[in-house]
Amino acid sequence: MQLVFLSGGSGKRLWPLSNNARSKQFLPLLEAPDGSMESMVQRVVRQAKEAELNTQITFATNAAQRDSIINQLGDGVDVVAEPERRDTFPAIALAVSYLHFVKACPDDETVVVMPSDPYTELGYFHTIARMADEVQNNAADLVLMGITPTYPSEKYGYIVPQKTTEKSLRSFPVSRFTEKPTVSVAEDLLREGALWNGGVFAFKLGYMMAIVRKYMQSSSFEDTFARYKEFPKISFDYEVAEKATSVAVVPFTGKWKDLGTWNTLTEELSHDSIGNVLLGDANENTHVINEMEVPVFCNGLKDIVVACSPDGILVCAKDKSETIKKYVDNLSLRPMYEERRWGTYKVLSDLSYADGTHALTKSIMLLPGKNISYQIHHHRDEVWTIVDGEGLFVLDGEVRKVKRGDVCVIRKEQFHAIKAITELVFIEVQIGSPLVEEDIERFDWNW
Amino acid sequence: MQLVFLSGGSGKRLWPLSNNARSKQFLPLLEAPDGSMESMVQRVVRQAKEAELNTQITFATNAAQRDSIINQLGDGVDVVAEPERRDTFPAIALAVSYLHFVKACPDDETVVVMPSDPYTELGYFHTIARMADEVQNNAADLVLMGITPTYPSEKYGYIVPQKTTEKSLRSFPVSRFTEKPTVSVAEDLLREGALWNGGVFAFKLGYMMAIVRKYMQSSSFEDTFARYKEFPKISFDYEVAEKATSVAVVPFTGKWKDLGTWNTLTEELSHDSIGNVLLGDANENTHVINEMEVPVFCNGLKDIVVACSPDGILVCAKDKSETIKKYVDNLSLRPMYEERRWGTYKVLSDLSYADGTHALTKSIMLLPGKNISYQIHHHRDEVWTIVDGEGLFVLDGEVRKVKRGDVCVIRKEQFHAIKAITELVFIEVQIGSPLVEEDIERFDWNW
Repeated sequence: MQLVFLSGGSGKRLWPLSNNARSKQFLPLLEAPDGSMESMVQRVVRQAKEAELNTQITFATNAAQRDSIINQLGDGVDVVAEPERRDTFPAIALAVSYLHFVKACPDDETVVVMPSDPYTELGYFHTIARMADEVQNNAADLVLMGITPTYPSEKYGYIVPQKTTEKSLRSFPVSRFTEKPTVSVAEDLLREGALWNGGVFAFKLGYMMAIVRKYMQSSSFEDTFARYKEFPKISFDYEVAEKATSVAVVPFTGKWKDLGTWNTLTEELSHDSIGNVLLGDANENTHVINEMEVPVFCNGLKDIVVACSPDGILVCAKDKSETIKKYVDNLSLRPMYEERRWGTYKVLSDLSYADGTHALTKSIMLLPGKNISYQIHHHRDEVWTIVDGEGLFVLDGEVRKVKRGDVCVIRKEQFHAIKAITELVFIEVQIGSPLVEEDIERFDWNW
Repeated sequence: MQLVFLSGGSGKRLWPLSNNARSKQFLPLLEAPDGSMESMVQRVVRQAKEAELNTQITFATNAAQRDSIINQLGDGVDVVAEPERRDTFPAIALAVSYLHFVKACPDDETVVVMPSDPYTELGYFHTIARMADEVQNNAADLVLMGITPTYPSEKYGYIVPQKTTEKSLRSFPVSRFTEKPTVSVAEDLLREGALWNGGVFAFKLGYMMAIVRKYMQSSSFEDTFARYKEFPKISFDYEVAEKATSVAVVPFTGKWKDLGTWNTLTEELSHDSIGNVLLGDANENTHVINEMEVPVFCNGLKDIVVACSPDGILVCAKDKSETIKKYVDNLSLRPMYEERRWGTYKVLSDLSYADGTHALTKSIMLLPGKNISYQIHHHRDEVWTIVDGEGLFVLDGEVRKVKRGDVCVIRKEQFHAIKAITELVFIEVQIGSPLVEEDIERFDWNW
């Protein structure tokens, strides 16, 4: 069995902790069984392992999230990053092509595609195991998970099973799908026994490859990747689920939540505050998450969430947390904090001048053994002051060892790279005009 | 007439915008008549000038506030900074000695001492003119301002005038003082016609010098300054006002407020937000002040103040803003933003390591023509990256011109200084163990 996690999302609704590079599923806000903090993806992958699904894991994602996934989950998972953002059908098509061409999985192997951010319990993964069994038993070409609804939601798609008197079925044939209904239609659907579409799909690899081939005759993963834009921009639900002639659903009745807003997320936090926070004695149902160095003090608050990150500061009534999405486009300039495969960086200051010059100061942490690629910039100088650790610094082909207190001055057009021996921390001052991330030309360096 | 403003205060109640170096009276939050922003001290000095008091102004303050006063008010005011914090009587004694010895004011010149932070109107200064007249008319040795109370407050001291049937008096003899009474005592006081003690005192210079000489026979200001600790730690109210045999009060009935808490301060703000703030459409009686670069978004808040500075972030119900004072000692480590005579600095990051080493990153702005003194550090290296402007950098006696993009590396024990030609901005990384402000030895440099 192959488990494919879909990981996307712009992360607007959990601003300022999430951004394009750090969607909600990567926020380390949940408490793991050992008391440490874990993210939603770390939680679901841990649960998948605890359920002993005997599966290999592949993440279908985009380039911006690749490093976060590897940082949080290590090398035990495969990552297939789409070359451009399209929709869920192309993303799944690419991941399935990877299983076929790169991992050489056989056509009759079961593939289960699921979101990377459900907040759920172990029974969810036992349901996935039953779905895989139904696929192997040829109960249907496509087997979906149906979440037992707890209220007539307008937010979800619904799966309507065929009426049956047989109680012993492990899966039920699907009669039809209904996308995001009104509340009154949803009430009717609930009476009909409809289930929420949880976005979990099980099928045999060969079944999906046949659909992929309708759009692209390809002989390799590289070819599929290069021609990715030939796939239509369409969701998996529309392209596959709704067109399929043989579809079944397996119900799941356990705990399942979408922690997509601050309102729903804070319900699952085990502490009132995370980070450098001081709470006065007169707060009620208030959660404060602080990822900045400076302290936050709150008092006299009721039903409020406060979230602080290098990207910004949110203070919002919990029942208004849905409104963030429509405002956030006016707030976010660039991500001020990013987790990369080589480590993390945080923007400390961004000064701009009338002549178009910017001065950007960052705190950068390089993990031991990791490096920043050999590169040049055409429009900016960089000054690095090493504040902790040891590393190797390359400037125009000359390597020197650097440690705390050393200064690396890199002028425009100078080739440079740095590799951490121990965990390396440095303060970077970039000065340039224009000052854009994209002003990087990368070269090979043989460490 | 000499006007002496008392400027002190630890600035705890308006955390995080105020701190030891930046008390509430220096916060640029009020709207001036021309639409620009001004601080409380800028406002009272502007009003004193508008009232045409024909006065010279001296600030009695402490060393930490000296630079803020000069930055905000320019060279048109004298500043007398006490060498150590004692109480209001010593501070006024020192200022009066300055008027006597340094400014050579005559003994019969009127001196009016007042706080630097009342939020009031022009009539207040016309009352001060009347107080000065009463001093010159020898109505009493000491003439106080009595604020007409608006409610039976427990926070203020009260001045009880003698009962009189004469309505034409410009001042009233004082019967007694009562410090911070209970509400029921305050209610009785109001029925007696008592007034709030606004901390405004008028007297002839010679009168006060006689009291000063009871504690210290001194022949110069320098001598008085050097022996400052000989003055008792006592307030002016206790030492002078309550002991005086000839005291009168001049009532003031106009607008007068102490903007000492976020609750009272926000009532006088002309805008809901200051700085990089986005307000959603569902806020009510909420004020947001943001002195950080990152954006603040607020929605669904009612009766709340949000204040963000490099020192920290406050989110507080307005009616709980009095509680800040008792929590703030657990919050403030070091001031993260300071206004100095030479410019400003802001702490961007403060990293610490297990071996006791700290790495402190600051953004520093030097005003044109200003300099940082020639100095050495015994325990830290400093790296300066110039990001804007031009200046002169001295290292071990060698002067060189520096501009944007230049890097100054200063090792322990190296003599260094920098002077701005145009407004100069640089990022400083300090690395040291221990890393303390006090690790500075200053020397002379002839620019």
